[in-house]
Amino acid sequence: MGEPAGIGGEIALSAWRRRGDGVPAFYMIDDPDRLAALAAQLGWDVPVTRIDAPGQAPAMFRDALPILPVDGKVKAGPGRPETADAALVIGAIDRAVTDVQSGKAAAVVTNPINKEALYRAGFRHPGHTEYLGELAGRLYRKPGATPVMMLASPELRVVPVTIHLALRQAIDVLTSAMIVTAGRVTHTALQRDFGIATPVLAIAGLNPHAGEGGSLGREDLDIIAPAAAELRADGIDARGPLAADTMFHTTARRGYDAALCMYHDQALIPIKTLDFDGAVNVTLGLPFIRTSPDHGTAFDIAGQGIARPDSLIAALRLAAEMAARRASADRR
Amino acid sequence: MGEPAGIGGEIALSAWRRRGDGVPAFYMIDDPDRLAALAAQLGWDVPVTRIDAPGQAPAMFRDALPILPVDGKVKAGPGRPETADAALVIGAIDRAVTDVQSGKAAAVVTNPINKEALYRAGFRHPGHTEYLGELAGRLYRKPGATPVMMLASPELRVVPVTIHLALRQAIDVLTSAMIVTAGRVTHTALQRDFGIATPVLAIAGLNPHAGEGGSLGREDLDIIAPAAAELRADGIDARGPLAADTMFHTTARRGYDAALCMYHDQALIPIKTLDFDGAVNVTLGLPFIRTSPDHGTAFDIAGQGIARPDSLIAALRLAAEMAARRASADRR
Repeated sequence: MGEPAGIGGEIALSAWRRRGDGVPAFYMIDDPDRLAALAAQLGWDVPVTRIDAPGQAPAMFRDALPILPVDGKVKAGPGRPETADAALVIGAIDRAVTDVQSGKAAAVVTNPINKEALYRAGFRHPGHTEYLGELAGRLYRKPGATPVMMLASPELRVVPVTIHLALRQAIDVLTSAMIVTAGRVTHTALQRDFGIATPVLAIAGLNPHAGEGGSLGREDLDIIAPAAAELRADGIDARGPLAADTMFHTTARRGYDAALCMYHDQALIPIKTLDFDGAVNVTLGLPFIRTSPDHGTAFDIAGQGIARPDSLIAALRLAAEMAARRASADRR
Repeated sequence: MGEPAGIGGEIALSAWRRRGDGVPAFYMIDDPDRLAALAAQLGWDVPVTRIDAPGQAPAMFRDALPILPVDGKVKAGPGRPETADAALVIGAIDRAVTDVQSGKAAAVVTNPINKEALYRAGFRHPGHTEYLGELAGRLYRKPGATPVMMLASPELRVVPVTIHLALRQAIDVLTSAMIVTAGRVTHTALQRDFGIATPVLAIAGLNPHAGEGGSLGREDLDIIAPAAAELRADGIDARGPLAADTMFHTTARRGYDAALCMYHDQALIPIKTLDFDGAVNVTLGLPFIRTSPDHGTAFDIAGQGIARPDSLIAALRLAAEMAARRASADRR
């Protein structure tokens, strides 16, 4: 469901309407009445149909959008979040993970949430991804799962090693250990979930021209180079630190499977420049597959039916592909 | 000429060979013998012809590459710079600026130099651009000219407000005044040299999502927003600070004429991702027009004839366009 005041509902309805375009079967964990009302209000012919169990979804998906109801009525309207909905938002996430954990569903795809609305209701996690990490520990009895964010598009995969931090703080907290962890988790996921037998990782330098041998900053030599060496010692084909400005053009991108970036914009600028609508947020390092559209709740346009479902559709497709590859890898 | 051990000679020969593709007439300030030898070695039929004055160049350009000789013989070979050549490298820059200052040429296009080789010979400027700023003061009696670097491609124009600094240092030195100066110089150049009557400037935030109202760093509120306000008070259409990751996709780029970026990679990542071979380095804020290919000396491939002349050709074309627009603007 995600935040019901955002565009999550309408992009899910849109995605179902484009099911002929190879959108894999999905069910929503949501309030069926609010989705039926939204479809009616937009004038979209989407038969919103209540299900009792995930197993009912595949057979009906061609003719109706299956909804596993959340435990209550959504109160929010478009652009107007309600603190009272927080328990439903979190309950939908919990149910999705539980369904995957019990083998009833193949992957979790999350619609955007609004952290402020959840915080007001007592949510205490820095974000969606961290909460999923906590659920992984609780439901899978695997504490210490390290969620690693990847943004993936057909053109490029990037992994920001630091994420939602002021730029100065990102430089301050960056360590070799963080890069090594991100590199290992990415390498494993590329093999298991992306079907790449011998992944190549490109590691971006922090400073211009990767520091030019130390004359433009020491971090490339002191933090990034040792991390790259440690990954190589693990048998991972990790290149770098590389000059970030020459890593993302067409020819350069052919040389690696994922780029590890040192800060938010170093990762987000190239992928959003290349593919603004179709990039998918993937959380690696969890015991279950989780993807998400690479955009927010977009309160400003919610309820108008103009939000593009491209990123949600890409997230659904990628989740299905990853689940098929993981199932096949795990059988071997 | 630029650094004679680099690829400057061969890309100039290549550019002349593609003169049918709308490459404007140019002359080189170089050593004619070394260029003739280079053409012969590469098996390229380029009649390298000595001239005494720039005015001889246009008439002969169709049939021969005009060379105004530097004051001595180049000693460097491909990939092997020689300290003894430094005076010739600097002399070629001086002569180019003098020719433009005296109205004999329309614009300066510089091939890449190797700073280390010049430093060993006593050169004391941080780089090419700063040296041109000093020449502007000396030859045009306009001390205090502020050179501002722009990278321009058909897709995007970016102006890095800080350039060759470690990322941490770029954050430390960034001031509102630097952004305002870069904005004013860029605005003037877009009008005078790019023919844009009412330019729109997009100013990038420093932190992720332009700091999210201060929760991800204060610089966007404390440094960048006041600079944007000051530019707007000047009557300049300056937007921002904007989230840098969503500024560079196709639709976003249509909304502005140049992006002011806060650090090297924030500017260079998007333009090199979009147009790796065809971006041009333009120095704004000088009393003469100066462009340059957006790459280095490439010692590793020098002398092989494989270096792409695309960026030099784009630099020649852009210089000619800017000169025509400036002449037309100055007549009005």
